[in-house]
Amino acid sequence: MTMHRSRRSADRTQARSTRIPQLPPGRLRNPYPPMALLSDDQVEAIHDASMRILEKFGIEVMSPRALALFERAGASVDHASQTVRIDRGLVEEALRTAPSAFTLTPRNPGRTVHVGGDTINFTLVAGPPNVHDCERGRRAGNLRDYQDLVRLAQHFNCITMLGNQVCAPVELPANSRHLDTYFANLTLTDKAFHVSAIGRGRALDGIAMMAIARGLTLEAFAADPGVTTIISVNSPRRFDDAMAEGLMTMAEHGQSVAVTPFTLMGAMSPVTLAGALAQQNAEALFGIVLAQLVRPGAPVMYGAFTSNVDMRSGAPAFGTPENTKANVASGQLARRYRLPYRSTPGSASNAADAQGAYETMMALWGAVLGHGNLVYHAAGWQEGGLTASFEKLILDVEMIQHMAEFLKPIEVDDAELALDALGRVPTGGHFFGDPHTLERYSTAFYQPLVSNWQNFEAWKEAGGLDATQRATKLWKKALEEYAEPVMDAPVREALEAYVAKRREEIGDGEP
Amino acid sequence: MTMHRSRRSADRTQARSTRIPQLPPGRLRNPYPPMALLSDDQVEAIHDASMRILEKFGIEVMSPRALALFERAGASVDHASQTVRIDRGLVEEALRTAPSAFTLTPRNPGRTVHVGGDTINFTLVAGPPNVHDCERGRRAGNLRDYQDLVRLAQHFNCITMLGNQVCAPVELPANSRHLDTYFANLTLTDKAFHVSAIGRGRALDGIAMMAIARGLTLEAFAADPGVTTIISVNSPRRFDDAMAEGLMTMAEHGQSVAVTPFTLMGAMSPVTLAGALAQQNAEALFGIVLAQLVRPGAPVMYGAFTSNVDMRSGAPAFGTPENTKANVASGQLARRYRLPYRSTPGSASNAADAQGAYETMMALWGAVLGHGNLVYHAAGWQEGGLTASFEKLILDVEMIQHMAEFLKPIEVDDAELALDALGRVPTGGHFFGDPHTLERYSTAFYQPLVSNWQNFEAWKEAGGLDATQRATKLWKKALEEYAEPVMDAPVREALEAYVAKRREEIGDGEP
Repeated sequence: MTMHRSRRSADRTQARSTRIPQLPPGRLRNPYPPMALLSDDQVEAIHDASMRILEKFGIEVMSPRALALFERAGASVDHASQTVRIDRGLVEEALRTAPSAFTLTPRNPGRTVHVGGDTINFTLVAGPPNVHDCERGRRAGNLRDYQDLVRLAQHFNCITMLGNQVCAPVELPANSRHLDTYFANLTLTDKAFHVSAIGRGRALDGIAMMAIARGLTLEAFAADPGVTTIISVNSPRRFDDAMAEGLMTMAEHGQSVAVTPFTLMGAMSPVTLAGALAQQNAEALFGIVLAQLVRPGAPVMYGAFTSNVDMRSGAPAFGTPENTKANVASGQLARRYRLPYRSTPGSASNAADAQGAYETMMALWGAVLGHGNLVYHAAGWQEGGLTASFEKLILDVEMIQHMAEFLKPIEVDDAELALDALGRVPTGGHFFGDPHTLERYSTAFYQPLVSNWQNFEAWKEAGGLDATQRATKLWKKALEEYAEPVMDAPVREALEAYVAKRREEIGDGEP
Repeated sequence: MTMHRSRRSADRTQARSTRIPQLPPGRLRNPYPPMALLSDDQVEAIHDASMRILEKFGIEVMSPRALALFERAGASVDHASQTVRIDRGLVEEALRTAPSAFTLTPRNPGRTVHVGGDTINFTLVAGPPNVHDCERGRRAGNLRDYQDLVRLAQHFNCITMLGNQVCAPVELPANSRHLDTYFANLTLTDKAFHVSAIGRGRALDGIAMMAIARGLTLEAFAADPGVTTIISVNSPRRFDDAMAEGLMTMAEHGQSVAVTPFTLMGAMSPVTLAGALAQQNAEALFGIVLAQLVRPGAPVMYGAFTSNVDMRSGAPAFGTPENTKANVASGQLARRYRLPYRSTPGSASNAADAQGAYETMMALWGAVLGHGNLVYHAAGWQEGGLTASFEKLILDVEMIQHMAEFLKPIEVDDAELALDALGRVPTGGHFFGDPHTLERYSTAFYQPLVSNWQNFEAWKEAGGLDATQRATKLWKKALEEYAEPVMDAPVREALEAYVAKRREEIGDGEP
């Protein structure tokens, strides 16, 4: 017994000392100038085309409440076709009240998300109907996997925010499962998250539950927001009722909205990048105008999700050169309007393989060089967003950390220039034992979690596992290391009571 | 029989129509401003530190001929320690004669490599002792694999130049195998290549054989170079005799030299990036001074290969954030001296897996953002350069093509803005059938070779192959599609005669 106990204790000690290495928590900033793929004239030409789309073609809005708001603001509204045409003046007015930066504060204020300026945030994948890992295979989304995936998001510091549902828990009733996912987000993590804004009810529930978790009234919460949502426009040029209502509900309550047209070139938008960007710009700004009409000053983000399809099959593609260019160019547009920028990496790969890695890395560079403030779907995205992958999540954490480390400025001073060491080490010698090295070696370099730097023989001897196989071990280890953040019992009870009450209210009806 | 024949003919027709898609041949330019990670002051501080290294500590040069050259130029030479100390004046003088751009013309002038300015070139991996593919496993380098790998380099347009030996053909005598590899380079490809400059003989043979292939005298060839080499400094601060002789031989003959310190932070250079860059700068400039002393105006490149080691094991790492930063910052240094820039991506992965992809993509972005003119080791690099991988070569071609496509400027004009199409397609509709799409769809987007964009079910049905498995099929297909470039019989005979003569001359001795 004693021996058993001491062995377990030794195991624990070792587990502590061999925890998965990761970057410390904190606000990540991009200190370098954003990349520009478009000239100023080209930005203006795209802006002008988007204004002509709004003025001439208009946007269909399937919400009477939204139509009335636009009408009151002086827009031209065709009620038969539910089409709203707005002029540049209305756009400019909205841009005067939209903030260029804001914060989202979750229940742990240490996890406050800064949106705007030079700050970058990375979120979990959102929306997949399926889940995959290499041990259990592919399966429908479910609450247990949902919980494990948000635990992983909590565990890894580089994921500063959850997205909308990391997978759909399809075994739960569709009209109330958002309550279960919000509850999981709030109890298993202390990070900010995206609420589902498909209709008023789901948005309100997310707002109410975060307010409870923070101990705030809805009024106080409106002045100090803590949740956001993605409004995925039904491109081309349509806001459906649920999305419009969701957007308005969020804005009414002072919560943030990222208006994100899903402009797949060749399918939902022109086959040309300039045309797709013009359309994206028109649709994103239109949603931002609506938010500002609801509540001037409501926090908003310029959302971009422009990629292309495979023109032979119509299948969506991600992490392509076109997607990457769009990520950079969209940042130029967002900055033209002084709006925070939501960007998106991605991959169409059906496996957490080399394609998954190079496509994601490609689009991730676009998002970073374009100064994305919120890099959405950044961890766990597989199969073009149809599957949340445990292994891909680990690979993505590695890639995000590579970027975070790349963005740390290079220091140049006498100590870093190391002339003393350069004079000490003989020609053809080595720096391993030099005091300059010994003082710094343990923290000098980024320590990866997935990358294996063993030589071939040692790697083969240890099993010859590829990066995907190592990722399987890592997500399991991360779940073991995961610690549930403390929540005061009364808060938890209040959340449970809210969920129970709302579940009963919703019944078989609409949320 | 007839049927058999017609089926084969049908197969051939299909094979032709389903060739591996790839970008057309041509000069790739990077039209965007280079990224800057260092401020101007930081660049100057690194420059100044490197000058102090050259002035105070000096460089060991194990070649009496080189020592004499430096002495004649006014450098301080300590013969006992073979140490050369040079002052800034000598560096500045050399930089006045070193060209900022030049061309390397192989036997096919259509394949001329432009080195400098905004042009980017990508080469095959160079130097691995081993070869790997997923069907035949890992094995020692050999001539048959060498030949297949250079055939692949010939086949893929994005590889604009071979490197030095893509693998060592170890079954051949070490003192004459360079003749066999040059012969393979010259007959199986019509692209430029790197000669091995380990000593005078190997360099001279490469120069002579390219001159024969182009039908030029050595004098004419010196005025219109066609080969280059990498001078890998024995960092810290040592040029061995073979490298110094190789460098001087190349410069004498007007051929190009990329002086490339291999500065692995923590091992051959300080553990700090600023220190490693200062050392790299000193060593690279020192080699460039030597080339200019031999022949003012000799084409040279500023070579950078700064990465870090795993401080727990001392193992080299590549494609790390540090490597990526060094790739960007080294470009700033090269441009300070108006020198063409040789950069390097890489990966430590032992497999053509997700790690191989994300590490390579990471460092590749650094090379491109840093405006590398020659991106060395860009295709086939595995195991930190110890193995040439057939699958990795295919994945790398895909990644290089992604970058090439990313660098194509975005066009913005009325046709590209597609306002007519945007007005035609109804809200919530799609652009698939619109004339604007139909006119452009076949060429609108980059067509990948490895990436699979099928949905999960179709992919699974087709075998569920991951990117690495697909890469195996692709290199085999590429070898089938490969066409040997025509060479006039007299040229081939002259090359054969040169090889035979030199093999006899060398015998059991030194080349």
